[in-house]
Amino acid sequence: MASTTTHAAGGLLIAWQLRDRPVLLVGGGGVAASRLVHLTHANAHITLLAPRDGLHPDVRAAIDSGAVHVWRDDVYRESAQLQLSAERDYDMVLTAIDDADKSREICAWCRARRIPVNVADVPPECDFFFGSMVRRGPLQIMVSTGGQGPRLARILRQRIETVVPPCAAEAIDRVGHLRMLLRQAAPDAELSADRMDWMTQICEAYTLEELAALDDATAHAWITKDWPRRRVPRRGGRPPWLFDIRARDVAWALGGACVGALQAVYWYHRAVRP
Amino acid sequence: MASTTTHAAGGLLIAWQLRDRPVLLVGGGGVAASRLVHLTHANAHITLLAPRDGLHPDVRAAIDSGAVHVWRDDVYRESAQLQLSAERDYDMVLTAIDDADKSREICAWCRARRIPVNVADVPPECDFFFGSMVRRGPLQIMVSTGGQGPRLARILRQRIETVVPPCAAEAIDRVGHLRMLLRQAAPDAELSADRMDWMTQICEAYTLEELAALDDATAHAWITKDWPRRRVPRRGGRPPWLFDIRARDVAWALGGACVGALQAVYWYHRAVRP
Repeated sequence: MASTTTHAAGGLLIAWQLRDRPVLLVGGGGVAASRLVHLTHANAHITLLAPRDGLHPDVRAAIDSGAVHVWRDDVYRESAQLQLSAERDYDMVLTAIDDADKSREICAWCRARRIPVNVADVPPECDFFFGSMVRRGPLQIMVSTGGQGPRLARILRQRIETVVPPCAAEAIDRVGHLRMLLRQAAPDAELSADRMDWMTQICEAYTLEELAALDDATAHAWITKDWPRRRVPRRGGRPPWLFDIRARDVAWALGGACVGALQAVYWYHRAVRP
Repeated sequence: MASTTTHAAGGLLIAWQLRDRPVLLVGGGGVAASRLVHLTHANAHITLLAPRDGLHPDVRAAIDSGAVHVWRDDVYRESAQLQLSAERDYDMVLTAIDDADKSREICAWCRARRIPVNVADVPPECDFFFGSMVRRGPLQIMVSTGGQGPRLARILRQRIETVVPPCAAEAIDRVGHLRMLLRQAAPDAELSADRMDWMTQICEAYTLEELAALDDATAHAWITKDWPRRRVPRRGGRPPWLFDIRARDVAWALGGACVGALQAVYWYHRAVRP
């Protein structure tokens, strides 16, 4: 083995709350389009500063759909423009423009005001970075390699997607709903630990697919019949391990069957006809 | 199916850069201990405000090891204390104390100064949230359910851990090293797209285990022999699918072999002795 590279600062991974908070995005190209996806998902109040010419189709679509709340059809010229464009101070500023000098000016303006800023592709001018994302409704998963391996981050994201099925979103919603019903049925503070234990046991006993299919009648039955006895509700139907047979298992079993059959015929043949 | 709950704001998942930046943590219990893990990993400059009595053993250990840079052995009393404890303005403040009034006062102090704040267990007093984390050296993965399903987040994190082997950390380091060598060998800006393509192809052609075992001599050979022809280096040894046989596959194959053998013997027996 060889020398290892030093670790880049990984940073602190957090979910920044931006609902209805004013955010400025400068630029209208492909990178700006991907930033808009992040900001829209976080329900930010988005101000976009980007000239009409050269807008990426997705940026154009975001403007047309109303996802962009304020759009200034200007080329960025000087920082006074940023002040003018803000009704109140921004909570966050993102730039995705090619002009390094203008980016630096925007970054300085933000830092003088303690506004977190991200200048695309210029790490020293970033107070935070984005990562490779998996999204399933309320579920968000971010993969960060501290900037060391963006491609490996994407590959790991794809591996992660294989173990996080689309139904995970619905499962989270249904479990959130069950938890709410439970808190209504047993609101006492001293039951908090019991509630957490019972919810944990349910989440561990059932697959995501089963949790996603949890209907209100079943949830109600669990809370009235099983919760009072602190019992994990039993599922009907197939035993749990049967849920988990994959095509791969069948292929290996068939392969094994063929080999076993040939071997057995060979032995038997030698046994009965010496 | 039943009515679905409304989605909580998921927030914007980011990697906040805290290397050497001043962060204040108020509290010394179990939650504070988990916050310290996050902050230490992000290489923050940590000031801790926590009375000596009731320190969690992990907090105690962080103080003893020097991971906490400044420790004030005080109970938090009033916000003037925060000002005094800061050499310069904090970049971030985290509180993990039981006293709701004191927490609210700290939150107000921070918001007046535009300092991002997180008050443990009080969502309205949080500018950001933490999620369930997977860490492998430079690799960080965060699972967030927007606060809807902390237990499901943990279960999903465990599923994710199964597809992110410990060697992922080393793989990221080695790929980062290969990328650095490549940039040295072919620094031209116009080769940027070629470099990215070649790196992507390598990351996709090799397993994480293989990338983690990439030594300097091999990396050098790839860059001198394969890169000039924009060719993905060929691996020696076993074909790649052989790397992937699991105990589970063998179990299914053996099971199949037994069934196949019994069936074959039965048929053969009927065939030779009518």
